[in-house]
Amino acid sequence: MINFKIILKVLSTLIFLEGIFMLFGVPFSLYYRDSDLVSLLISSLITVAAGGSGRFLTRKALPNLGKREGYIIVSVGWILFSFFGSIPFIISGAIPSFTDAFFETMSGFTTTGASILNDIEAMPHGLLVWRSMTQWLGGMGIIVLSIAILPLLGVGGMQLFIAEVPGPAPDKLHPRVKDTAKRLWAIYIIFTGAETILLLFGGMSLFDAVCHSFTTMATGGYSTKQLSIAYFTSPYIHYVITFFMFLAGTNFTLSYFALHLRFDKVWKNEEFRFYVGFVMLSILVVMGGLLITQDITVEKSFRDAAFQVVSIITTTGYVTIDYLQWTPFLVILLLILMFSGGSAGSTGGGIKMMRILLLFKNGLLELKRLIHPKAVIPVRFNHKAVSPQIISNILAFVVFYMLITGLGVVVMGLLGCDLDSAFGSVAATLGNIGPGIGRVGPAENYYFLPDFGKWFLSFLMLLGRLELFTVLVLFSPSFWKK
Amino acid sequence: MINFKIILKVLSTLIFLEGIFMLFGVPFSLYYRDSDLVSLLISSLITVAAGGSGRFLTRKALPNLGKREGYIIVSVGWILFSFFGSIPFIISGAIPSFTDAFFETMSGFTTTGASILNDIEAMPHGLLVWRSMTQWLGGMGIIVLSIAILPLLGVGGMQLFIAEVPGPAPDKLHPRVKDTAKRLWAIYIIFTGAETILLLFGGMSLFDAVCHSFTTMATGGYSTKQLSIAYFTSPYIHYVITFFMFLAGTNFTLSYFALHLRFDKVWKNEEFRFYVGFVMLSILVVMGGLLITQDITVEKSFRDAAFQVVSIITTTGYVTIDYLQWTPFLVILLLILMFSGGSAGSTGGGIKMMRILLLFKNGLLELKRLIHPKAVIPVRFNHKAVSPQIISNILAFVVFYMLITGLGVVVMGLLGCDLDSAFGSVAATLGNIGPGIGRVGPAENYYFLPDFGKWFLSFLMLLGRLELFTVLVLFSPSFWKK
Repeated sequence: MINFKIILKVLSTLIFLEGIFMLFGVPFSLYYRDSDLVSLLISSLITVAAGGSGRFLTRKALPNLGKREGYIIVSVGWILFSFFGSIPFIISGAIPSFTDAFFETMSGFTTTGASILNDIEAMPHGLLVWRSMTQWLGGMGIIVLSIAILPLLGVGGMQLFIAEVPGPAPDKLHPRVKDTAKRLWAIYIIFTGAETILLLFGGMSLFDAVCHSFTTMATGGYSTKQLSIAYFTSPYIHYVITFFMFLAGTNFTLSYFALHLRFDKVWKNEEFRFYVGFVMLSILVVMGGLLITQDITVEKSFRDAAFQVVSIITTTGYVTIDYLQWTPFLVILLLILMFSGGSAGSTGGGIKMMRILLLFKNGLLELKRLIHPKAVIPVRFNHKAVSPQIISNILAFVVFYMLITGLGVVVMGLLGCDLDSAFGSVAATLGNIGPGIGRVGPAENYYFLPDFGKWFLSFLMLLGRLELFTVLVLFSPSFWKK
Repeated sequence: MINFKIILKVLSTLIFLEGIFMLFGVPFSLYYRDSDLVSLLISSLITVAAGGSGRFLTRKALPNLGKREGYIIVSVGWILFSFFGSIPFIISGAIPSFTDAFFETMSGFTTTGASILNDIEAMPHGLLVWRSMTQWLGGMGIIVLSIAILPLLGVGGMQLFIAEVPGPAPDKLHPRVKDTAKRLWAIYIIFTGAETILLLFGGMSLFDAVCHSFTTMATGGYSTKQLSIAYFTSPYIHYVITFFMFLAGTNFTLSYFALHLRFDKVWKNEEFRFYVGFVMLSILVVMGGLLITQDITVEKSFRDAAFQVVSIITTTGYVTIDYLQWTPFLVILLLILMFSGGSAGSTGGGIKMMRILLLFKNGLLELKRLIHPKAVIPVRFNHKAVSPQIISNILAFVVFYMLITGLGVVVMGLLGCDLDSAFGSVAATLGNIGPGIGRVGPAENYYFLPDFGKWFLSFLMLLGRLELFTVLVLFSPSFWKK
């Protein structure tokens, strides 16, 4: 029997907290004397009341919380958060359509950054802070999800991390989810604060600095400007953001080690080395492409390449330039990079470095196995053998990812998209990036899509963000059978 | 130690036979009084001499033929066949560039059908017969490879067929490769003959009927007309070819059973049912799309849809219409179908029905496994449990397929292709289809590509045709180590 009461209790608590967080925009609203003050207060009240009464009704829930309950809480939680989170946009009239508001908020909580807004600067400041905050909260959720919950559920090879979560004892798993979460959230908050300060030094307003720090660390990519980061011409700001995007795409447990000066552990981590190599190689290729095809300085080519490459690989989705104007080869390359994703245990989406690395290794070993069919040759990761079950799960994840991409492209084609836009929109939402290619490229947005397309892409964002299986398992009949 | 002498012996024998087969074009050359007679005779002589002398030099080779020798023979065999097979085109001057001639011949022997010819009708008849015959011989090779050799090598899940090869005893594997090959080739020849006769009834000349039967049964797709099958306006011809393409995309062991009136075995085969369902569903969707967007009769929409869908799913690559003129959704759908491929054990390329079916099943079970992590839940295929090793191998195959597609698209982008053309050319060559989308669409060809692109795509054809692993294993250092 699934314990629906405890599910409701957990969800109510989370929604109650969401309502409190909505108030974070209020000081900005007051300072800028914007019209959204009342909307924020009312939305907060509604959300707090909904969460509070749900909490009250379930106060006697039995505390047994199993795997099934976990799956439901995670998937439904993200949907409910997006539902309540869209209320401020709707009642303020800033986004009149419910579909659009839900899309924008789901895109926030899934740290995607795909937007339907045509004139971001016209939005009141309090709402923009909330919009950025949906991503920041989503990022917090993802950290605890990917490092503390998914390994327990055994989703998509994430169990490889179970032994990697830092605790107080030497390299041992700290068993308490809450404690791990607190440690990693502390880092998340420290990084967000550090970026805010550095952006203030670069001449950003406090409002812009906070909003962008929120969405950088979440690899979300919402900006307060229609032009995204291209609005800020200072190279310093570009470099600061590039650096923090890279950090946000790194496994937060490694950042934890780094902050404790345990650099040996960081560098010994195979995924991190692969991530660094992958990012550097991609930057060099793009830089080369830019230098050959454009008349720009080496510094500019490096900055543009690094910013866009890191933004896409980490699935942030900020832009400093309309990369669709680049030579077709570079556009194709960026599209392929949209599948890579950041490190596991980061806030980045996509397939993720760990899986790609393990696939490479397994592929090479598969050839070896053909030659020595009787030999048992396990894949090794961080000097440990990885069980065939985990490899099989990772392979299935990637195949699912591709299958969903294929089906998604067909659906978007059915809605009238050309190949570029269909591919771009699916890759950019399933990978939680934001801007794609074609008509959803960096200079445009998702506004023009029909409602069904927006709901469909919202679903893809959720699927991608929750590592596919967490959502798909709910569609399996055996999930609901006892 | 790899026994290179026996490798050379087998290859020499095969090349000797290739030289003999070249003479098949001679009667056509004589009948049409074409200029290619001498070229064919000289090429045949060169090839027979090369094969014969190789055979003579290796007459004392030890007969031990292991797996490694098998891999080398298959990969090098296809390359050597393409090399010798291109001689008639070169010395006749019909295709002056070696790159072009090799591309055209590799495209033949891999039953791809990607062409660089801009004026097919200007080619002498003997050469066109040879061009069609390269596909027909390639198809013969594939039948024996996929049903008799790859299962032994354990490539790409093909071992599932080892128990499926028909023999004289009730449902038992007939252990002798030669015998199996002979049985299946008999069917291949019967079908080719039957199609030739039916096409003659439809008003085709003997030359056209033979050439098209050759390339239908091989799912090759070379036509004697620049317009491909669109040249023939008779609906009867379209339907006949559709039917035989469908047959060619069916596992030949099932055709064997069908010819022995064992229809129960055919219908009980899960892959066949999936293939029938997949083809029918695709036809219906395309037909619907055509009826909605175009002003055509139901019959015409069915015929166009069925022809193009079957042609692409079976990886034949004939066209009766320029499908790039269809509504974008249908183009996208056809591009996705380019990955599906025919049945395993057919002459079709691509990922293949069996693998897609097993992936679906495994995907659903992966969800079940998440809920019951301790339970051992095997994938079942034709009522038998499939070992996790085979599933893992199939998953790795598909991931490799996608990875190579991604890398291929980047390479073609680097050569100046736009996204459509890059995707189209890679999907259509790796999948052994022929025409793709974009600039390599059905109304165009591969002539315009730079030489490097042609060599690269030739390699992709070989990779796809030999189920990736057969070729890739040669690049593994452990293959060459003792």
